[in-house]
Amino acid sequence: MGSLGPDTGASDSLTDWKTKVAHKQKQCRDAIPSEWQVHPKVLELLDLPLEKKPNRLIDLDVVRKTGILSDRELAITENYTVQELLAELASGQFTSVEVTTAFSKRAAIAQQLISCLTETFFDQALERARYLDQRRSEGKLVGPLHGLPISLKDSFQVAGTEASIGFVSFLGKKSTENSPIVDILLSLGAVLYVKTNIPMTLMTADSHNNIFGRTLNPLNTALSAGGSSGGEGALVAFRGSPLGVGTDVAGSVRIPALCCGTYGFKPTSSRIPYGGQANPGLPGWKPITACAGPLANDFEAMEIFTKAVIGSVPGALDSTAIDVPWRQLDPIAMSKLRVGALAEDPSYPLHPPVKRALDEAIKRVQADGHEVIQLSAEQGHVADATEVAALLFTLETETPVGNIKASGEPPVPSVAAQHQPANRGERRFVPEISKLGKLQQYAALTVKRQELSEDWRKLWSDLRLDAVLGPPAQNTAVPHDTYGWPPYTAHLNLLDYPACVIPFSKTSKQLDRAPFTVQPHQAGPACQ
Amino acid sequence: MGSLGPDTGASDSLTDWKTKVAHKQKQCRDAIPSEWQVHPKVLELLDLPLEKKPNRLIDLDVVRKTGILSDRELAITENYTVQELLAELASGQFTSVEVTTAFSKRAAIAQQLISCLTETFFDQALERARYLDQRRSEGKLVGPLHGLPISLKDSFQVAGTEASIGFVSFLGKKSTENSPIVDILLSLGAVLYVKTNIPMTLMTADSHNNIFGRTLNPLNTALSAGGSSGGEGALVAFRGSPLGVGTDVAGSVRIPALCCGTYGFKPTSSRIPYGGQANPGLPGWKPITACAGPLANDFEAMEIFTKAVIGSVPGALDSTAIDVPWRQLDPIAMSKLRVGALAEDPSYPLHPPVKRALDEAIKRVQADGHEVIQLSAEQGHVADATEVAALLFTLETETPVGNIKASGEPPVPSVAAQHQPANRGERRFVPEISKLGKLQQYAALTVKRQELSEDWRKLWSDLRLDAVLGPPAQNTAVPHDTYGWPPYTAHLNLLDYPACVIPFSKTSKQLDRAPFTVQPHQAGPACQ
Repeated sequence: MGSLGPDTGASDSLTDWKTKVAHKQKQCRDAIPSEWQVHPKVLELLDLPLEKKPNRLIDLDVVRKTGILSDRELAITENYTVQELLAELASGQFTSVEVTTAFSKRAAIAQQLISCLTETFFDQALERARYLDQRRSEGKLVGPLHGLPISLKDSFQVAGTEASIGFVSFLGKKSTENSPIVDILLSLGAVLYVKTNIPMTLMTADSHNNIFGRTLNPLNTALSAGGSSGGEGALVAFRGSPLGVGTDVAGSVRIPALCCGTYGFKPTSSRIPYGGQANPGLPGWKPITACAGPLANDFEAMEIFTKAVIGSVPGALDSTAIDVPWRQLDPIAMSKLRVGALAEDPSYPLHPPVKRALDEAIKRVQADGHEVIQLSAEQGHVADATEVAALLFTLETETPVGNIKASGEPPVPSVAAQHQPANRGERRFVPEISKLGKLQQYAALTVKRQELSEDWRKLWSDLRLDAVLGPPAQNTAVPHDTYGWPPYTAHLNLLDYPACVIPFSKTSKQLDRAPFTVQPHQAGPACQ
Repeated sequence: MGSLGPDTGASDSLTDWKTKVAHKQKQCRDAIPSEWQVHPKVLELLDLPLEKKPNRLIDLDVVRKTGILSDRELAITENYTVQELLAELASGQFTSVEVTTAFSKRAAIAQQLISCLTETFFDQALERARYLDQRRSEGKLVGPLHGLPISLKDSFQVAGTEASIGFVSFLGKKSTENSPIVDILLSLGAVLYVKTNIPMTLMTADSHNNIFGRTLNPLNTALSAGGSSGGEGALVAFRGSPLGVGTDVAGSVRIPALCCGTYGFKPTSSRIPYGGQANPGLPGWKPITACAGPLANDFEAMEIFTKAVIGSVPGALDSTAIDVPWRQLDPIAMSKLRVGALAEDPSYPLHPPVKRALDEAIKRVQADGHEVIQLSAEQGHVADATEVAALLFTLETETPVGNIKASGEPPVPSVAAQHQPANRGERRFVPEISKLGKLQQYAALTVKRQELSEDWRKLWSDLRLDAVLGPPAQNTAVPHDTYGWPPYTAHLNLLDYPACVIPFSKTSKQLDRAPFTVQPHQAGPACQ
């Protein structure tokens, strides 16, 4: 494993990375029009520093207080689902220019409060919006996403912008081509206007790096927004984007969704094109195939995005994509589903609010006439899958560590913490494979993975399951740098099942009073 | 790389493997009913030893001369396509018992002449056929393959039989479960009756091992039947099976097809379930994903098999299968296709009959009204893809070598030859990666592979290709143990494109007189 010891770089290299960061940060600040700058008086209403104090920016209605958005712009960003926005754009009730302006303003405000953006290209977005409005006035909709602003995780390449993914050593290299999904979204009529913040290495749940800072949770700025698509989660929750695209290899779409209270969908791998990503790791080394997927504030948006992208036949633009046609489900069959209920894994106990939300959800599903089948922890295999995933991810860490060291920058705390010995539950497979060569370890872990996949296939087949309801994490949003490994999400990357985070219920000091004690052998963050 | 030096096993281990083989061979012989034994007088009509002399068993009409099949049985095995057989079975014109008997007899004769079988289970097959006939008499067809005998490569598991895949060290272990495809074929109404011969390690094109001997080509017994599904190719060409299932990771369905003059289809990986295979290599190590696919004497059989298996929703039985629905093509669009013509790669020149057949095929396609677009060798990337595939396959050879050594048996000549230094064309990537660790080599090769895949995607997209016509090999069937590496097939495994071998034209002493000289830097077997 790559090691992240104390920084031993010469002082000029230190100066150098700080200079580069300062330069980049100035560029980013300058890209925000002065009329979209949040007035210092608004900040005075907040409890500073934001990162340490629990400012509830949504409840405080901070955006309205900035005075930057008109009432119509506030309404556009707050009162419409994606489907409704698209309908208004298609009918001409809203122009793309005004929708793009509204979300750009709101994204700019979000950036100043919760550091959720990386690259911004508001001018190009408005130019594109004008073009789309022109086309519409000629009676032509470019595609099913005509006129809709869509935000993108920093790892997607947009030609002419950077995709530094939070490595100082990656700064200064502009993307020369769009990622395939970017071209597809444009062909579907979308407007691209911002890219969003991520963790250094993309492999922690804290979207924090030395270039773009730390993304804060707009529901409570003392809490993590999650990661690695944390900028997306925070921006969407702030309603600075109607629809964002993240990526997920261990939970990176779903963790920000659960932390920020948005929807987040991780499809089966290779259905949404993932080609042309900025890559923090060793090129060509993909022990688990990552996916791209949407985040939004409503469920239908997940379907709109996925259906539109799949319908574009992405395999023609991306050799990593598998073209499987969209399947329309039978509404009659959908009216009575067999839903498995994933049990808490004893290695990863659920915090009281998560347990309560899950119990409530199960009751709701039953009340709607569906059949719920309780699955045991043994059937779920969450701990085993998490261990196999963690071992696969840590087979090669020299490259991301090298990408940090290349500039002399220090690791951020969540990255540094990953490299400390940590209790990650029982490590049952480690003794079996630790003496093998790396390639043999990879093969042995693949065998374990196949066994788990077969067990899950049998589970679904034998019980004739249509869906499984489970927690996306042990916890709700946690304090910064305490998220730890993500068992309930990584589990489904290892098995390559599609999974959607559906916001349901909220923590409550009244309802979630049950004492919660983590046993010494139990991993996971402290309850917040 | 595992090394295969001279055998240093103690003599008792030598005795031991030979004893095991003798025991197995006796079991196999005893499983063939005495009334299906070929009379020695028939052998006297042939030029012995078969392996060294060019006996043209098909032209000689040997089966008829054995007198084992009735005229009706000869007709059943010789005069019907798969579609026609299924129609006769469905209508009751033929019973499954008589069709199964006819193909069982013919397979038994084939085995005695060209060693194409491994396991046989004629009794169970007839019992199954009786059951299917009973169901039909009750007005019920079990599935679209009702009553059809289907042969299987030895690597598929059929509960109660062995899947030794030609390793003495694997003998004595009976499969406890069917491979998923086996269950699927049964659910579709098929009758399983034989498994077929393969090369030791499954990684040569000569279906030869110390247990089941060497499969000979029924068109000319001095030539290779190809491999690794060589038993299938030979049996199908002998019309001892109407439809066989092979597997293909570098050409193992297509090489026997081209050597034996049958159709052979390699689908995109994971569409036909490949789970539950006997594995010659390191469990979990799959640098290129192998596919299962059909061989038969007519093109429609490829579609019948593939459509039926895909329609069974194989993902429900096999976690490695991807369910993509069958896509019915538009006949109008099909009437004018854009067909790329793959150029000869200068590293792998085409032998005169292959060149001529390809030229003729192109003219035929053009004459049918399709547009042919000539692709350059640079666009084809055959040599690059072959090199990457070869390097991927040779990253881990300790396991197959260990499986040979475990019993004390020596490698067969085609396996021993693989471990000699050989000219495999230019080796451009080797110097780049040879100093890296195995896992890093794998990653570097994956990057090369992605680049080639992207180039091919662009080629198909830019030129709007519907299909590509190319040679499946440099050569037609070659003398035993001279096939070498398979550039034109491995190419499409690396890229994961579907590919079908279509028999077209034959070698001709008259027409193929052009001199053919292999340059020192050019790989490939000698022209036969």
